[in-house]
Amino acid sequence: MATKSNTSCCSPLQQHRCKYKPVLPDMLKKGPCAVKVKTGKATQSVADQATVKKMFPNTYGMPEVTFMKGANPAIGKKAVKAAVVLSGGQAPGGHNVIAGLLDGLKKANPKNKLYGFLGGPSGILEGKWKEITPKLMEGYRNTGGFDLIQSGRTKIETDEQLATALATLKKNKVNALIIVGGDDSNTNAGVLAEYFKQQGADICVIGVPKTIDGDLKNDKIETSFGFDTATKIYAEMVGNICRDVNSARKYWHFVRLMGRSASHITLEVAHKTHPNVTLVGEEVLAKKMTLKQIVDDLASVVSARAKEGKNFGVALVPEGLIEFIPEMKALIAELNDLLADHEAELAKMNTVTEKKAFIISKLPAKLAALMKSLPEGIAAQLMLDRDPHGNVQVSLIETEKLLVEMLRTRLAELKKAGKYNGKFSAIMHFFGYEGRCGVPSTFDANYTYALGYNAAALALNGCSGYLSSVRKLTRKPQQWECGGVPLTMMMNIERRKGKEKPVIRKALVELNGEPFKQFAKVRQRWAMNDDYQFPGPIQYFGPAEVTDMITFTLRFERGAKK
Amino acid sequence: MATKSNTSCCSPLQQHRCKYKPVLPDMLKKGPCAVKVKTGKATQSVADQATVKKMFPNTYGMPEVTFMKGANPAIGKKAVKAAVVLSGGQAPGGHNVIAGLLDGLKKANPKNKLYGFLGGPSGILEGKWKEITPKLMEGYRNTGGFDLIQSGRTKIETDEQLATALATLKKNKVNALIIVGGDDSNTNAGVLAEYFKQQGADICVIGVPKTIDGDLKNDKIETSFGFDTATKIYAEMVGNICRDVNSARKYWHFVRLMGRSASHITLEVAHKTHPNVTLVGEEVLAKKMTLKQIVDDLASVVSARAKEGKNFGVALVPEGLIEFIPEMKALIAELNDLLADHEAELAKMNTVTEKKAFIISKLPAKLAALMKSLPEGIAAQLMLDRDPHGNVQVSLIETEKLLVEMLRTRLAELKKAGKYNGKFSAIMHFFGYEGRCGVPSTFDANYTYALGYNAAALALNGCSGYLSSVRKLTRKPQQWECGGVPLTMMMNIERRKGKEKPVIRKALVELNGEPFKQFAKVRQRWAMNDDYQFPGPIQYFGPAEVTDMITFTLRFERGAKK
Repeated sequence: MATKSNTSCCSPLQQHRCKYKPVLPDMLKKGPCAVKVKTGKATQSVADQATVKKMFPNTYGMPEVTFMKGANPAIGKKAVKAAVVLSGGQAPGGHNVIAGLLDGLKKANPKNKLYGFLGGPSGILEGKWKEITPKLMEGYRNTGGFDLIQSGRTKIETDEQLATALATLKKNKVNALIIVGGDDSNTNAGVLAEYFKQQGADICVIGVPKTIDGDLKNDKIETSFGFDTATKIYAEMVGNICRDVNSARKYWHFVRLMGRSASHITLEVAHKTHPNVTLVGEEVLAKKMTLKQIVDDLASVVSARAKEGKNFGVALVPEGLIEFIPEMKALIAELNDLLADHEAELAKMNTVTEKKAFIISKLPAKLAALMKSLPEGIAAQLMLDRDPHGNVQVSLIETEKLLVEMLRTRLAELKKAGKYNGKFSAIMHFFGYEGRCGVPSTFDANYTYALGYNAAALALNGCSGYLSSVRKLTRKPQQWECGGVPLTMMMNIERRKGKEKPVIRKALVELNGEPFKQFAKVRQRWAMNDDYQFPGPIQYFGPAEVTDMITFTLRFERGAKK
Repeated sequence: MATKSNTSCCSPLQQHRCKYKPVLPDMLKKGPCAVKVKTGKATQSVADQATVKKMFPNTYGMPEVTFMKGANPAIGKKAVKAAVVLSGGQAPGGHNVIAGLLDGLKKANPKNKLYGFLGGPSGILEGKWKEITPKLMEGYRNTGGFDLIQSGRTKIETDEQLATALATLKKNKVNALIIVGGDDSNTNAGVLAEYFKQQGADICVIGVPKTIDGDLKNDKIETSFGFDTATKIYAEMVGNICRDVNSARKYWHFVRLMGRSASHITLEVAHKTHPNVTLVGEEVLAKKMTLKQIVDDLASVVSARAKEGKNFGVALVPEGLIEFIPEMKALIAELNDLLADHEAELAKMNTVTEKKAFIISKLPAKLAALMKSLPEGIAAQLMLDRDPHGNVQVSLIETEKLLVEMLRTRLAELKKAGKYNGKFSAIMHFFGYEGRCGVPSTFDANYTYALGYNAAALALNGCSGYLSSVRKLTRKPQQWECGGVPLTMMMNIERRKGKEKPVIRKALVELNGEPFKQFAKVRQRWAMNDDYQFPGPIQYFGPAEVTDMITFTLRFERGAKK
């Protein structure tokens, strides 16, 4: 699987971005040998402390660490071999994590080496890797994508897999493994760190917080990388659509945005573009809203705007909405059981109508009514599109289409009742893949480079079981603080597939948090006025207030940029 | 319909773009009073000369005009009132046409005034307008969208409409009308110019070539505005998807791109991103390809790549593909008739299956086989989704889904026959609205400002019935040439709704033209290699080779940039 060098004949922007030198935090500027580890207090997991402690006897309770200036020549004396693996979905800046790692390692000792496992964690199990040389790295600096070594979703979980991973690392004399991933992959990093210690293997495991979804964060991990770039790309598109809507004045655009587990992306894009309606899954859950309530709310905005002659608007819908609606979650759970229990009977029925009637007869009254209210296409999809385990494929449901179809029905009712007299024409979009591999923004380019460089420093100091932590991100990059957070500190216990598992807790949108509160203050105004914002494309050159913008999420959560 | 000023609290990029001063061609720098009209040879329409001449007795055969340096103080003596109207779909740069117009008019005589008709040509009929003052213009300079005065699709065609338009203009003492639009709207501009001359009204009509589709061009109109920006935006997204594909290595992405009548957008985006497959409608038509052939061709690329372990790729599909496939066009025409002739019988049938069987029984053998081969969903759509005239709504057909479904079937056949052993997972996109209102690229910002400024000079010189022409676009803006092309020169006669109509001929992709020939040379390589390009977002600051890129289409058609 040869990866060609992409320095030549690439786009003019890419050629220029390859030359960009990310700004390192002052603390790291003189290299890993010029900083010392300062340990803080012992830590606790976010919940289920006793159970997590029992599961991680060797890595539980470790202190937070912060890097302070100070000579530390020891860590540069012995040449080490580090290996990096990219895990899970792509996020802008992955290549810069690798560049930061490489540069940090080489700065400490030019004989240090960096390997990349290919195709994600399966590369460790299959022993597929290549050396990341400074020459190879050249064409990938400040670029989007994970194509340098690709990514994958394999988990290293079973005893056999853990043993195989250890064997690969030992065979190749790897001293440190850096896992770049989201909550699941970093949970996996924690498991590996614990396992290696249990086995007496001196292999340091470091995690790096990656996910465009923005749901891997806490007090010490202010944001995961990629969120900044991805939301800027989606906001460029949504802003363009807002301008189109305001020019054509005849369509409602419904935009579903990536992010199944949390609505951070949707909320951030809303702050960047001021659409008329923004649905936030966490609010739907907290208020136990029904699908009908959501549709009714949409209908009131559409009809209120129509009264002012505005038969147009923009609505943002988070990808995971369906699973936040309690009754839909209940319906899907019931369907999973019913479809399995009555497989043979259902198979004999020829039409969707027949199957639907059968299913409805078996559902409890409330869910039967809900199933009845769903548009045909969606009902059919719920019954027919099942994954290999026989479960309803929630991720395939086009939520924006579901909402638009039900909204059409609701508006027709209102029209009949003389309460609505507008026109409703809808256009639908889904944005997701467009943002996962964009050229990283200046923020993400600097942040990921720092995360990688910092991870090198953590690895050289033997801080196994830590997540690379670069913080105070609302300040200039020079003033960012660096250190590490024990992975076990972020864990709690969740039931997955019937088993108790230690996992890093996902950070959902907090209704008490500033990003949501600020949104709640203005959403009524956004609904009626056309207060659209047009962020435009990410800029890499030009005035700092354009190139160096940080997310509203960070700004609201951490205070204004200084 | 008050339009708020958008200078305040707009995005940082927008604030900076508002300050940008477009580069004017040297020829126009000293204003309209410093240039003189040089007339060329008398012109002929592109076809049907006798008929067009008969329809345009007053404006047929006018000479091309070019601006040359020379004192021309007369045109600045009398204060004039000009009015502008935006017609049809949005295109990046519309606001700059208005800014150029305004600045050109004011430069000639500060007492000149510019009005904007609101909501497209219907604003003329309804007498809805507002004055475009320099202050109002401020916040809209170099911005995307048409929101300053909006747009619309009304045509001014009937005798009554023509008379109403003239009455509005006379009542408001308008001396010149500038129509910014595509081929249809500029045909309309030609009709109005002729009508006003017939009526002895001294109102000058000037057209400005707008359309992201790029199908309004000829020797003197090198490109329509908006094509540059829109294709850059689509290429940013497609490039990001290419990078995602090359990183995840498990999906085929099918991207449908806006542009129903011509495949220029798709071809330009292909040159910018090097996808594995690019369908060009004009080639499909020229080769009289069947839907099956197209699907078979796709299947060979997918299976050839699968043989090399590459179960991933990117395919671009022009929005108008269906109508370029001769048999599909024939099928749709037959369906339009059959559905109308058998409306009552079909209404009595309850299921799609029943209707489909009925329709198939009435179709000629070849078309019956084609109808049979279509996936259920598409067949249903062809029979059920009809417009108010009872016609099949071709624009609603999701061509990328049609191709993917048929491709799945074909790949399953190949697998059965032992000729394919890969995995095929497809993700689909449609990009269109995202690009119509983007912030204009530096090229489009300069080009549209020049087109508007040039239109002011044409209007002041009384060149009614001309299209604003700014040419030699591969050179630096300072060296662009300016002038006008008679609208009648671009016309031919086409049958529309049973009537012979003079219309500006659409410029389709020429299979003998350089943009297609260059593509044909390399597409085999792009199919198998992963030669993806990642153009990234449009840049407004930074090195000129990044900010000032022109389209491949222009470069190939007009020779390299000097």
